[in-house]
Amino acid sequence: MQVVSLSGGNGGKEAQVLIEKVFMPYLQEFLAARGEDAGVFEARGALALSTDSFVIDPLIFEGGDIGKLCVCGSANDVAMGGAHPKYLSVGFILEEGLEVELLQQILSSMQEQLRLGGLKLLSLDTKVVPKGCADKIFINTTAVGSVLYPNLSAKNLREGQVIIVSGAIGTHGALLFSKRAEIQLDTPLASDCQQLFPLLEPVFKSGCKIHALRDATRGGLASVLHEWAQSSKVGIEVDEDKIPILEGVRGVCEILGLEPYVLANEGVCVLSVEACDASKICALLQEGGAKEACIIGRVISQKGVFLKTPWGSKRPLDILEGELLPRIC
Amino acid sequence: MQVVSLSGGNGGKEAQVLIEKVFMPYLQEFLAARGEDAGVFEARGALALSTDSFVIDPLIFEGGDIGKLCVCGSANDVAMGGAHPKYLSVGFILEEGLEVELLQQILSSMQEQLRLGGLKLLSLDTKVVPKGCADKIFINTTAVGSVLYPNLSAKNLREGQVIIVSGAIGTHGALLFSKRAEIQLDTPLASDCQQLFPLLEPVFKSGCKIHALRDATRGGLASVLHEWAQSSKVGIEVDEDKIPILEGVRGVCEILGLEPYVLANEGVCVLSVEACDASKICALLQEGGAKEACIIGRVISQKGVFLKTPWGSKRPLDILEGELLPRIC
Repeated sequence: MQVVSLSGGNGGKEAQVLIEKVFMPYLQEFLAARGEDAGVFEARGALALSTDSFVIDPLIFEGGDIGKLCVCGSANDVAMGGAHPKYLSVGFILEEGLEVELLQQILSSMQEQLRLGGLKLLSLDTKVVPKGCADKIFINTTAVGSVLYPNLSAKNLREGQVIIVSGAIGTHGALLFSKRAEIQLDTPLASDCQQLFPLLEPVFKSGCKIHALRDATRGGLASVLHEWAQSSKVGIEVDEDKIPILEGVRGVCEILGLEPYVLANEGVCVLSVEACDASKICALLQEGGAKEACIIGRVISQKGVFLKTPWGSKRPLDILEGELLPRIC
Repeated sequence: MQVVSLSGGNGGKEAQVLIEKVFMPYLQEFLAARGEDAGVFEARGALALSTDSFVIDPLIFEGGDIGKLCVCGSANDVAMGGAHPKYLSVGFILEEGLEVELLQQILSSMQEQLRLGGLKLLSLDTKVVPKGCADKIFINTTAVGSVLYPNLSAKNLREGQVIIVSGAIGTHGALLFSKRAEIQLDTPLASDCQQLFPLLEPVFKSGCKIHALRDATRGGLASVLHEWAQSSKVGIEVDEDKIPILEGVRGVCEILGLEPYVLANEGVCVLSVEACDASKICALLQEGGAKEACIIGRVISQKGVFLKTPWGSKRPLDILEGELLPRIC
């Protein structure tokens, strides 16, 4: 089998062959249930669930591909609910004619991430649509996790809390921009795409007080800060010179006239924490491998989101308007 | 807003407007969590989870649309695990330029089915892809339910068990075929698309013994029977004159030279049950509104799936091969 044929989605013999020959070598080890419509698992207590569809273009990029992204993305959304991601369901929409080799590369990345996260697959669905009705492959993942750290909410911000980012911002977005615009970079970029739970688990268990937690995906850091400020009816002020941004990202932003604050991330989270715990949380994140984790700002009473320059002046940090870049994830 | 624009998927202001103005009027009442990445719910005991992507063409058909289908489809897959469907996540992939009015009609159908099933929404995701990268709208739904009737399995069939169908078969598939082939029907067909849990709940609670349960979607009745026969290493024999098939479905099959056994259903399930409970189960299904529920066959030792004619002759009932009809669900 070289390419995916339309009959691979018919629920009959060809669909069975596609599943057995192409999908199972990569995914079988994670499947909780075989041959049933629904996967069954035992649960007790609070669970977090999150769904996401991935329609990224290009499918493969430095530091990842749609397979890595779709596992990390949903696992991260569940981790942002203070939960340990444990189960995943995956729905594939394949375009007729998709190269099986490309599909295998994507499945291999999924396999690696599922192993890394210790995740089980509860349910798997594949659909094939005629050529021209989809762009190669779309993947939906839904993750389920058990809540370790409850009551995180966008509504929890109060004046005096401290804002932390877990790493350099805008890298995934800048990389995709540079690829689409065919910009040659002096310093090569790689997507920040990664699973965040392993990084956050020690923080959840540390006794430190986190009030809000969010990964800064579409819309970037600016989008998270605006959502929080609005939901909690407070203001947020961040220091321009504290926000970690890679040189390569700055370069792409200059060429394209963009701000890094609105660029997507796929493995960077933002935390609003109790001021007295902020340094300890940064240290824990750094110990976990997030070398650039740092305090970037604070919650204030004046409503809005503001960027403070090193010279003390303050300007509004704008949220994204118009179409920046479709199909970033 | 007349059509969905690409910036509706950017994670910024336009995405917020699309969600607030178009999605929320229909879905807000079901959302367990607002403004967070993950929805949180309390669980105890065994849960069943199932995912499905819906890529049906046409989007609207007699008896339903993609909105009704995507709620019923995943809720039914969970019900097939012996579970009471309780929660849903929904991921939309929208094509740039999709008419908002069409989207609203789809959301309105979802609303009706979510109400009917008493379902809550845990997570909602929307992506917009450029014109030509998807065909109007694809929807993924993942359903979660609590298991009432455990241990249903395709591996449970044993000689002597009795096979039941809950209603007339092949209607959804025949309807879609007739629409695609532009066949004028004397007796108008409507899809059988419906939620099956309300029908099955009394059976689950009756004390009757069900061994296997499956909804006969893609691949139809034939696909379910073959999967069961293979998984349990047994044979199944069904009586041609017992299988309920609507006149209109027979008509479409004659015109197109098809067998109704391979046609998709979206609200018909197949049960393999203990022989002594079969009549009672049929009666319970009929009381629940499935007037055509009946015994159609039995599990035998001779391997394979067979169709017995009223004259006593027997022929293999074939599984679907090749592409019958893409995008049936």
